Amino acid sequence: MKKAYVHGYDQRENIRLQDQASTLVELLHSDTFYPAGSKVLEAGCGVGAQTVTLAKNSPGALITSIDISEASVHEARNKTAAAGLTNVQFQQADIFNLSYKPESFDHIFVCFVLEHLPQPVEALQTLKKYLKDGGTITVIEGDHGSAYFYPASEKANKAIQCLVELQQKAGGNAMIGRELYPLLQQAGFNSVRVSPRMVYVDSSKPELVDGFTKKTFTAMIEGVRESAINAGIIEQYVFDQGIKDLYRTAEADGVFCYTFFKAIGIK
Amino acid sequence: MKKAYVHGYDQRENIRLQDQASTLVELLHSDTFYPAGSKVLEAGCGVGAQTVTLAKNSPGALITSIDISEASVHEARNKTAAAGLTNVQFQQADIFNLSYKPESFDHIFVCFVLEHLPQPVEALQTLKKYLKDGGTITVIEGDHGSAYFYPASEKANKAIQCLVELQQKAGGNAMIGRELYPLLQQAGFNSVRVSPRMVYVDSSKPELVDGFTKKTFTAMIEGVRESAINAGIIEQYVFDQGIKDLYRTAEADGVFCYTFFKAIGIK
Repeated sequence: MKKAYVHGYDQRENIRLQDQASTLVELLHSDTFYPAGSKVLEAGCGVGAQTVTLAKNSPGALITSIDISEASVHEARNKTAAAGLTNVQFQQADIFNLSYKPESFDHIFVCFVLEHLPQPVEALQTLKKYLKDGGTITVIEGDHGSAYFYPASEKANKAIQCLVELQQKAGGNAMIGRELYPLLQQAGFNSVRVSPRMVYVDSSKPELVDGFTKKTFTAMIEGVRESAINAGIIEQYVFDQGIKDLYRTAEADGVFCYTFFKAIGIK
Repeated sequence: MKKAYVHGYDQRENIRLQDQASTLVELLHSDTFYPAGSKVLEAGCGVGAQTVTLAKNSPGALITSIDISEASVHEARNKTAAAGLTNVQFQQADIFNLSYKPESFDHIFVCFVLEHLPQPVEALQTLKKYLKDGGTITVIEGDHGSAYFYPASEKANKAIQCLVELQQKAGGNAMIGRELYPLLQQAGFNSVRVSPRMVYVDSSKPELVDGFTKKTFTAMIEGVRESAINAGIIEQYVFDQGIKDLYRTAEADGVFCYTFFKAIGIK
């Protein structure tokens, strides 16, 4: 997997993740809270963008947050400490090679992780081993094929498609959101429920125009400019016009739509 | 405008509209109700698919439902009579040539109409004349560019695009849903709020798999098969495979997503 497509490895990506987390927290996380005393595994915490929200929403839960990157774990640890949170412990670990005993956790939380994995079903099956019977798994993913906007733009679609193709080449899937239902079913979870979380942005919502359309989504697409042009996926002028067209959707008469998917399954 | 793209002119389309209305009623209409005694204009009632719900939800309101087609008005009248509703009066009339006095209505309701009009802003401006100051307009439209699904299929996308192109040739806009915010603003309405209504379908919701994915959306696309092939927009085998791929999304591991947009503005 290419480094550039694993969250949290460069500063620009970090800022984007922070912008995303602070503007989308309520939409994505407000209905996730775990009982006091429950043991929760956050698999793939990255730089802790979601960890702070997770720990705040469930102050009595004991959260174990892991990531494959030692640097990300370090940053996540600092972030939760700065927020005064004491209910999270961190560990550098690989989802496919964990040292916990089976059924160590009451609940598992996985956010913006499966999109990077070549074998998402196997990852879910592996995590399931560490979950107690009756425990829940919560999975949140975006879907870049869910982005549409006004004014519509073929060049903007092509710029977005660059990220989809690069992520695919890196073994990931940028359109995984729509697949959460079959993925959790294939991994053997029961009572799977998927809840789409659509971000609808028009100029009556200036905080989302700035925080989501510009600083989260368009910035993310802009972030693959050099990789996409160097890989020969797109011509420079097409990409650049596509980005301009995405910013155009942030003007007074523009509209931007994107959907995240949140799935819950029971072991 | 081609007859085939104005709802309510053939029987197959009627059945589709009924299926749509009965499975989507709650999603689209449950938050629309008008006070007793208020005068409501339903502009473009078609065969009355929405009229019955509108009249039931607001039993004390006095609803005037109009459509440009006398045949549709006749069918709508029969439908509300069969439902035992007495608070609706019907009239054959053209939105652009109404005989009401200005400011005759407290509220206006427009559902699945603007998508067929070459001049949607002008239609909204015209309707606004008949609305009292402080009255609301409610507009509901779909957006065929909002459809995506698992498994993804390029041929299914092309089949959907046929309907978009045919509707465009007929002077309409099948992707108008995302534009409701700027359209209502341009027509001079105030405090415009748009609420997307996403239909998310997986096999845990069998009634939507049957009622929406198959009988509403895919049936609608299937309905333009001959027009699309005759117009040379698509090759027959591509269209037919696209339709198969849409039905494929209705299987146990399939997912289908579509979004309607509901806008409210104040005069």
